[in-house]
Amino acid sequence: MGLHEDMLGMGDRAVDAAHQLASLTTRKKNAILEAMADELDARRTDIQSENAKDLDAGTAAGLSPALLDRLELNDARIDAMIKGLRDVAVLKDPVGTKITRWMRPNGLEIVKTRVPIGVIAIIYESRPNVTADATGLCFKTANAVILRGGREAMHSNKIIVDILQSGGEKKGLPPHSIQLVETTDRDAVRELVQMVGRVDLAIPRGGEGLINAVTEMARVPVIKHYKGVCHTYIDDSAELDMAVSVAENAKCQRPGVCNAMETLLVHKDIASTFLPAFADRMNTRQVALRGCAQTRVILPDIQAATEDDWTAEYLDLILAIRVVENLEEAIQHINRYGSHHSDAIVSETANHQKRFTQGVDSATVYVNASTRFTDGAEFGMGAEIGISTDKLHARGPMGLEELTTYKFVIAGDGQIRE
Amino acid sequence: MGLHEDMLGMGDRAVDAAHQLASLTTRKKNAILEAMADELDARRTDIQSENAKDLDAGTAAGLSPALLDRLELNDARIDAMIKGLRDVAVLKDPVGTKITRWMRPNGLEIVKTRVPIGVIAIIYESRPNVTADATGLCFKTANAVILRGGREAMHSNKIIVDILQSGGEKKGLPPHSIQLVETTDRDAVRELVQMVGRVDLAIPRGGEGLINAVTEMARVPVIKHYKGVCHTYIDDSAELDMAVSVAENAKCQRPGVCNAMETLLVHKDIASTFLPAFADRMNTRQVALRGCAQTRVILPDIQAATEDDWTAEYLDLILAIRVVENLEEAIQHINRYGSHHSDAIVSETANHQKRFTQGVDSATVYVNASTRFTDGAEFGMGAEIGISTDKLHARGPMGLEELTTYKFVIAGDGQIRE
Repeated sequence: MGLHEDMLGMGDRAVDAAHQLASLTTRKKNAILEAMADELDARRTDIQSENAKDLDAGTAAGLSPALLDRLELNDARIDAMIKGLRDVAVLKDPVGTKITRWMRPNGLEIVKTRVPIGVIAIIYESRPNVTADATGLCFKTANAVILRGGREAMHSNKIIVDILQSGGEKKGLPPHSIQLVETTDRDAVRELVQMVGRVDLAIPRGGEGLINAVTEMARVPVIKHYKGVCHTYIDDSAELDMAVSVAENAKCQRPGVCNAMETLLVHKDIASTFLPAFADRMNTRQVALRGCAQTRVILPDIQAATEDDWTAEYLDLILAIRVVENLEEAIQHINRYGSHHSDAIVSETANHQKRFTQGVDSATVYVNASTRFTDGAEFGMGAEIGISTDKLHARGPMGLEELTTYKFVIAGDGQIRE
Repeated sequence: MGLHEDMLGMGDRAVDAAHQLASLTTRKKNAILEAMADELDARRTDIQSENAKDLDAGTAAGLSPALLDRLELNDARIDAMIKGLRDVAVLKDPVGTKITRWMRPNGLEIVKTRVPIGVIAIIYESRPNVTADATGLCFKTANAVILRGGREAMHSNKIIVDILQSGGEKKGLPPHSIQLVETTDRDAVRELVQMVGRVDLAIPRGGEGLINAVTEMARVPVIKHYKGVCHTYIDDSAELDMAVSVAENAKCQRPGVCNAMETLLVHKDIASTFLPAFADRMNTRQVALRGCAQTRVILPDIQAATEDDWTAEYLDLILAIRVVENLEEAIQHINRYGSHHSDAIVSETANHQKRFTQGVDSATVYVNASTRFTDGAEFGMGAEIGISTDKLHARGPMGLEELTTYKFVIAGDGQIRE
């Protein structure tokens, strides 16, 4: 059998599993999640001996220390996978929820009901803990998963999938609910994301290259968790201390993540008071600043920003700064150069706040708060599978609800159309 | 300039228009819709003289009478376009609605707010009235549209787009809100559906060939309005008169549309009483029946059904019939052969009703009612742009709400993340 037939077979098994999963009760799903967690706990030695094979091969292949670190499953990381599954068991189950319900004049009752999506393909890079985290969220919402991890984590991913599936089966998990693509053939990804009718959604988790490759090949819907080129705009009416503190937090609290600020925009009328105070603060935080020409009139010692800086996701202690004429120019800059992720205005003027939140075309738009709050846990959603920078189906933090869809269930007593 | 640059330019203009559209008030949008309708009314002669060019060319090219009929814009059809726009003006505007709103312990207020999708590409076949109908719905939800109609309707589409855009501008419609792809180059469709970052959603409207071609080429999200292979399952506990009447309505009330029944499934224990009565009714309605082996034991005179009949969308007075062992076999048949559109059970047993609505993986699932109710107007949604057979973002009748997405608007007073 060739790759094509192998993948179709995997898809068929996933569809079968998905149909069985759809009728599991919440109580049963939670028991299965606990059984998966128990099995991970019981088989730590197996996990670590398989993980050691990946680490040895990675070392021999000359992987960087950073990549080897991401690959490692030490006790703390296994604990985190176990806790992750138990946390998901406690979360509210969205499946079966009645989203809306109405009656028609002819007596038909229409109930828009939340249901699983079906089969979800997750394509990800080297972190093997994603295998357990993504599976937990997809399973809680009764979706079957097909996982395609990085080749360097293959032994680790195999053992984790085996543990989750076999541990879950002890409490009634349908066969093939969790499947791993075990070939390292790159064409397997193409096959996977072209299985219309078998795969309902593909979620690539990783760098820009992976996301672009999946998007170009896919015929099934893809939800992208793309980069975060996030902005904070300091309006002329901003309260100065708040502006400094919100911008500092957005840049410095954790610079290596997607909701950290990368570009600061400052209204020209507040620039000469705000920028010197802010630059002092950035200096103490060791942030390197790059400014437009007007910024450098006020802060002559900083590096000049180039066009590339406006689209850069530094993920580092670097910040681009631009002075703008007015609110409209700030909005245009964000819509043009940003990644539609998280953007903030600091302003005391209600009308400016409104124009900003209406005009900025991003998943999350903040007034007088740090962009760092774009996060499933901070939103109170519990765990998240990522932060969607797409506009369709799911936008922003993507939790359990976003891993479901709906159907219309319509009850009558013999209604026919005239 | 080549096609690629032309299309990118069109995309850029649409994005600009979309940003302006997003802040129009409902009142202003409704005035623009009325102005579009007024302009269509005022320029009937222009429409009909342009339409005559398409009809002449179509006649010369030997188009079938059915196709020529679809192409024709007579007075009644122009009236319908005008009424369509005025009807959409009256519908409730979903843009700006607060979907949910909650407070976090740190005092942040999170408002999930309904917003336009942005730029929508509509790719459709010969009916020129789609130009006005689709534009009306997309505009009411503040989306910019790029239309790509059939080459045989080019003159008609051009004049309609010109009228809608220029008529709307009299009341403040932003330039380039409504654009038509005027080249007949087939590569233009490819360019259109690959403009990630400029086109947010593509909706193909037409036959299977068009939908498949768009899906294969697209890199932007596509929502498909696919065929309807709809089923009615007669459970062993069905009330006999209701079963006959519901199935008759689903097949005969308008056989040429996507929500008409194509396959009837009958529980083996009710087959010998139900089928003869139903066959009599079908005989009076001149429906040709095709049955499985067990069906033909009871109805020996009908044609044998082949495997192809289970996936056929006849859109005609033809019906495939299969006797099933039990409810589970009916559900499996529907999930395997159906198109996930509209399926019904006729049953007096609550537990069977529940298992059916839970197990059947379709956009709309009916209990004791005709599948013919799957329709925006019948659902009380007003106009619809189609019936989605996809699972993501929009499923089933797709009205105004489904032409929007959401953003999170978050208000604070200086919150930073610890």
